[in-house]
Amino acid sequence: MELRKDYILDRWVIISKTRAMRPHQFKQDESIYANDKGPKECFFCPKNEDKTPGEIGRISEGRGWRMRWFPNKFPAVRLQGKYDITTDNKFFTYSDAYGEHQIIVETQEHDKQMTDFDEEKLVEVLKTYANRIEDMRARPHVKYVTVFKNHGKAAGTSIIHSHSQLISLNIIPLEVQTKVDAVKRLGGCPYCEIINTEKNSHRRVFENDNMVAFTPYASRFNMEVWVFPKNHHKRLDDFTDEDYLDMARCLKHILAKLKTL
Amino acid sequence: MELRKDYILDRWVIISKTRAMRPHQFKQDESIYANDKGPKECFFCPKNEDKTPGEIGRISEGRGWRMRWFPNKFPAVRLQGKYDITTDNKFFTYSDAYGEHQIIVETQEHDKQMTDFDEEKLVEVLKTYANRIEDMRARPHVKYVTVFKNHGKAAGTSIIHSHSQLISLNIIPLEVQTKVDAVKRLGGCPYCEIINTEKNSHRRVFENDNMVAFTPYASRFNMEVWVFPKNHHKRLDDFTDEDYLDMARCLKHILAKLKTL
Repeated sequence: MELRKDYILDRWVIISKTRAMRPHQFKQDESIYANDKGPKECFFCPKNEDKTPGEIGRISEGRGWRMRWFPNKFPAVRLQGKYDITTDNKFFTYSDAYGEHQIIVETQEHDKQMTDFDEEKLVEVLKTYANRIEDMRARPHVKYVTVFKNHGKAAGTSIIHSHSQLISLNIIPLEVQTKVDAVKRLGGCPYCEIINTEKNSHRRVFENDNMVAFTPYASRFNMEVWVFPKNHHKRLDDFTDEDYLDMARCLKHILAKLKTL
Repeated sequence: MELRKDYILDRWVIISKTRAMRPHQFKQDESIYANDKGPKECFFCPKNEDKTPGEIGRISEGRGWRMRWFPNKFPAVRLQGKYDITTDNKFFTYSDAYGEHQIIVETQEHDKQMTDFDEEKLVEVLKTYANRIEDMRARPHVKYVTVFKNHGKAAGTSIIHSHSQLISLNIIPLEVQTKVDAVKRLGGCPYCEIINTEKNSHRRVFENDNMVAFTPYASRFNMEVWVFPKNHHKRLDDFTDEDYLDMARCLKHILAKLKTL
């Protein structure tokens, strides 16, 4: 796995051959869920724990678990090799794709998606994100951590059982760096201003004491929604318990609405 | 149709409601070509010329045509309204989505794709691109013209009959501007250097007297290929007849190879 920079732009890509070898529960051109083999053969279902890489952690329940996390079996990055960026011949800039790629399985239940989780469960998921991010950012040479969750075949999901992914990296992606630079240039916190503006606009879709959600002014996708804490927090683990609960309520509301569309 | 800038980044999007109303020859979740109704009902086939917006031009053949171009019936931009960029309240930057959106139908034959065209036909297509680009860039307030060709359902094609699209705009997209700035900073023509490097590397996939094709060092997609003239040309219509012919040969070779994969 290699991290490579474009000849000219500060745009990075991960070159990985092994990712193409992932198992797929969707067949090409088959409709969603058509090729799901069910709990017996699912890598993320209980009783199949030995089919995943060694567990990093779990939230236990009795002798079993409510959530568990482990390294991705087909990682896009790993903690091996050279994390320093090298430039050869002016145009070839690279390093090993250095970082961690983890999976969080959020539920034992094969058929439950995030939209089916109750508020308490959503809080547990969010707190686990914060905990995983903190763990990953504490490692040396990590400059960026991202959390994502693909849903449905069109999003590239290969396993139907509800899960989230985290990737840490030894570089800051171009778009993130551009945003950091722009925020510095603007002075103060532009997001606090944006939130104040949008919570009074027709683009607001949900608001409670601590959270506000709105469709961004220049949205790139249909149904795109941004969720923000109203208080200025730099990091997810700066959230108070009230923030987590209000975020869970906000997510619950939005996911329920999206399901009806 | 509106052009809107992100709150913070110089990233623009076109907000368009009418694009969702396009006819689709593909049904969702059906395999490619499954829902093609054939030449009789195809908007781009001969005898149905009255189903497209008024023709801008054509390459005639007898009483018919070999190629024809016209405005897109469901345009993403149009030559109406305000082309100047306005900024309200610091975060809301916009204009009308000002520009042209044209379609080139490249062949009368419903089932022929670009990979089936001979060299002479490919030269005709390339020269028509150059001619259309020149026409569009001559209009006042146009800052950028892009040519693209979607192929297959996954690329978002709504009509199977082979065609290309051109869009002109009153802004320069962020990625293009970033590239222009980087090239200025690097001095000279970095692309001339990149071409010289890559034509001697294992990433070269084709080369003839005037053209070279290679898979870029930091490719973002499987099978991504870049094609360059070896001579330093700034614009497609600076191409000589030899350039056009060699570009056609290069395209022919690459498309034939891609078809076998």
